[in-house]
Amino acid sequence: MHDNAPASAGPIDPALMEDFVAASRILAHHGVLDAWGHVSIRHPSNPDRYLISRARAAGLVSAGDILEFDLHSTPVDLRGQRAFLERYIHGEVYRARPDVNAVVHSHSPTMIPFSVTGEPLKAISHIASFMCEEVPIWEIRDCCLTQGLLVTTSKQGSSLAKTLGNRPIALMRGHGNVVVAPDIRKAVHRALYAEVNAQQLAMAKSFGRPITYVAPDEAQDPKRVDDAWELWKSEVIDQM
Amino acid sequence: MHDNAPASAGPIDPALMEDFVAASRILAHHGVLDAWGHVSIRHPSNPDRYLISRARAAGLVSAGDILEFDLHSTPVDLRGQRAFLERYIHGEVYRARPDVNAVVHSHSPTMIPFSVTGEPLKAISHIASFMCEEVPIWEIRDCCLTQGLLVTTSKQGSSLAKTLGNRPIALMRGHGNVVVAPDIRKAVHRALYAEVNAQQLAMAKSFGRPITYVAPDEAQDPKRVDDAWELWKSEVIDQM
Amino acid sequence: MHDNAPASAGPIDPALMEDFVAASRILAHHGVLDAWGHVSIRHPSNPDRYLISRARAAGLVSAGDILEFDLHSTPVDLRGQRAFLERYIHGEVYRARPDVNAVVHSHSPTMIPFSVTGEPLKAISHIASFMCEEVPIWEIRDCCLTQGLLVTTSKQGSSLAKTLGNRPIALMRGHGNVVVAPDIRKAVHRALYAEVNAQQLAMAKSFGRPITYVAPDEAQDPKRVDDAWELWKSEVIDQM
Amino acid sequence: MHDNAPASAGPIDPALMEDFVAASRILAHHGVLDAWGHVSIRHPSNPDRYLISRARAAGLVSAGDILEFDLHSTPVDLRGQRAFLERYIHGEVYRARPDVNAVVHSHSPTMIPFSVTGEPLKAISHIASFMCEEVPIWEIRDCCLTQGLLVTTSKQGSSLAKTLGNRPIALMRGHGNVVVAPDIRKAVHRALYAEVNAQQLAMAKSFGRPITYVAPDEAQDPKRVDDAWELWKSEVIDQM
Repeated sequence: MHDNAPASAGPIDPALMEDFVAASRILAHHGVLDAWGHVSIRHPSNPDRYLISRARAAGLVSAGDILEFDLHSTPVDLRGQRAFLERYIHGEVYRARPDVNAVVHSHSPTMIPFSVTGEPLKAISHIASFMCEEVPIWEIRDCCLTQGLLVTTSKQGSSLAKTLGNRPIALMRGHGNVVVAPDIRKAVHRALYAEVNAQQLAMAKSFGRPITYVAPDEAQDPKRVDDAWELWKSEVIDQM
Repeated sequence: MHDNAPASAGPIDPALMEDFVAASRILAHHGVLDAWGHVSIRHPSNPDRYLISRARAAGLVSAGDILEFDLHSTPVDLRGQRAFLERYIHGEVYRARPDVNAVVHSHSPTMIPFSVTGEPLKAISHIASFMCEEVPIWEIRDCCLTQGLLVTTSKQGSSLAKTLGNRPIALMRGHGNVVVAPDIRKAVHRALYAEVNAQQLAMAKSFGRPITYVAPDEAQDPKRVDDAWELWKSEVIDQM
Repeated sequence: MHDNAPASAGPIDPALMEDFVAASRILAHHGVLDAWGHVSIRHPSNPDRYLISRARAAGLVSAGDILEFDLHSTPVDLRGQRAFLERYIHGEVYRARPDVNAVVHSHSPTMIPFSVTGEPLKAISHIASFMCEEVPIWEIRDCCLTQGLLVTTSKQGSSLAKTLGNRPIALMRGHGNVVVAPDIRKAVHRALYAEVNAQQLAMAKSFGRPITYVAPDEAQDPKRVDDAWELWKSEVIDQM
Repeated sequence: MHDNAPASAGPIDPALMEDFVAASRILAHHGVLDAWGHVSIRHPSNPDRYLISRARAAGLVSAGDILEFDLHSTPVDLRGQRAFLERYIHGEVYRARPDVNAVVHSHSPTMIPFSVTGEPLKAISHIASFMCEEVPIWEIRDCCLTQGLLVTTSKQGSSLAKTLGNRPIALMRGHGNVVVAPDIRKAVHRALYAEVNAQQLAMAKSFGRPITYVAPDEAQDPKRVDDAWELWKSEVIDQM
């Protein structure tokens, strides 16, 4: 551990840790996270810390893989592990958005076609109400390139957070998306239904007719994410 | 149990209960029911009662989760459980349709693109003969909004039942569908092949040629749903 | 057993029976056969007999389910079981095609869009070389309706066999297809790659450019169906 | 063993053999390799030798199936096994490309529609950066036909290698693709994301808008294929 390393905010509730680990497994199980995406949570005891896995495929993440960072994405203690290069996405979003306690960065397959065409991505299904306003697209070239299209600096993360604004989701051109929520279960719901809604919207567009999107006064987040959570967790619990 | 609670119509045949529970599991297994859809049956001993799971993901439903309601969707005995907010879909359909003994409400993925475009949904495959007439689309705004696009009142359920009329299926704009049948096995068949036929129709439309739909005089419900049932049940029996 | 029942041609080689049962399981595993399609083989000891399962979902078929029929589709001995209504597809194809020793009738999902639009279905991939000529579409109304679009009489089966001609595959409008081959392994290969090629062709058409189909002088059936068979069988052997 | 057979370069490191076998299993698991595609590696001890399975479905390949060939695709010792007819793809690529140590030949499903239309296949996603230049299409008729569209001679393999040039991937019209890389893990990554990117691109094209491809100065191969490898291997290790 480095002398200048930020102090730890301490251990978190095991139930939250179980949900956090399950989140990675669930999103991998549903094909939202491939071998490279990641999930984080803000530390419940200190809003200036967040938790994220060491660099490891989401489908394999366990509690022992979780590392702690401050909001500059400086590690508390790497314990000899590698950190995700793109952790700045998470740190900068937590800095910009005090209301956010969970962040998902994914390469969810259907995000890419929307991100490279500018075809508007919006909710057509009630369950994706959180996307009832058009999802913005972050163009990394409006900031700067460092390692291809990857977000590897605070400056890039901050630029992405600016595009995200106060919304629940932003696309990253040619790369994927970032999804945020007040808690980890809602973040999983949003990351999953961003993908489902995008697939449905692509089909709807193929019909060549006007599309009725979910109107702002019709939008409503699902009341019972906990019921879905029971199902989603049950589908991955055997591998955890 | 509330003093004014409706009386129970008593237990049902265990074989019917097994089919009923299997129905939820089968439709979840085939991706027709996500974490939020539901299946109900009319009580075989009293046409003024119906049975539906407590608020729980269909893929996890067991016999112990089943609750009983009257056709106003008032519970006989909640046993400390939460009821589905949208149970009014079921109650109002049973009130309007004496011939119906099973109801499925789903967010079956391919229902959404048809529901938000008005692209006609009709059978192109013999196995979906039940849809040989165009499927109507229920627009909740023609009734009233309460909680987003959800059906949470008798008034909304009744409006939906009116759109359904004497048909086997109706779409709910930006939300999903309701599928009805004289028995639970046929309801599962219809819910499943509404999805399959919709996927096939979307591809057929992409060819940009005239489509030959199943004509009314060609339509015929499958004779042997029981053979399919044996297969479908076998695919979920291990988890039940 | 009826007095006028045709005589049995006797038992068949257990290795052939294992391949025959595996064929149903394999095509069910790959989504080519749903709960209602079926596979048959000509009896190796008597070309006037064929073998097919009792009316049962292909994914559940075992050796004990196999029944024997003459080419008029009259059963040798039903053993108290129900026969497939559509067995006339098989009987009439065997009568018309002495070169054919295996028949698959499926509702393979991507057959339907081609069958109801007349969009030409032809091989674009070497592995589907057997379809290098345009697949004909059988229109049941050119013959006669009995039970919807089902083939339930010799007359209908014979009409379908006429459309098939000397080809390996024919579509049935709004219903599915019939695939034939000199042996059961090749029949499975053809039924599977008819579906795969149809999916690929649908995507190719979406690009709106001229398509290069497999030319007749480029067509060649795969040499090593046996290698594929080893894999396909291994994927279902645990359930057999 | 034939008197004129080339000499063996000896056994290889068991860890490399495990990766090599896993490569076949992984690509089969992800649907990139069907029953007929194959993977090879250049022998680490002798650049004039390569290793490839005997003719067997990739999903079943084990260390005991691996055979050794010289770069003319002459076997060191067939041990009574059949060799892949199309091994000339591998031999000729290794001859032409000293930088290549692993080759995949697949019929990856989404390669076919691009190969038969000439629709440009290029990276739209960062993770497919290796395809940031348009993928060339090899037309076998520009060389010569022997067995349909198969590559069964050195001449055909050499012609394909010429089309490949110094690129990581080339399509084979109506047949599939060839993917090359400096090591086996990167070859798996490329074969897998060629398919994923092609699927995403097909959807992007359906929107009918200009597409922003990954620009050459944005392209960057993933740093951590090893993390993905840990996941991919874990998904097939039980069957190995």
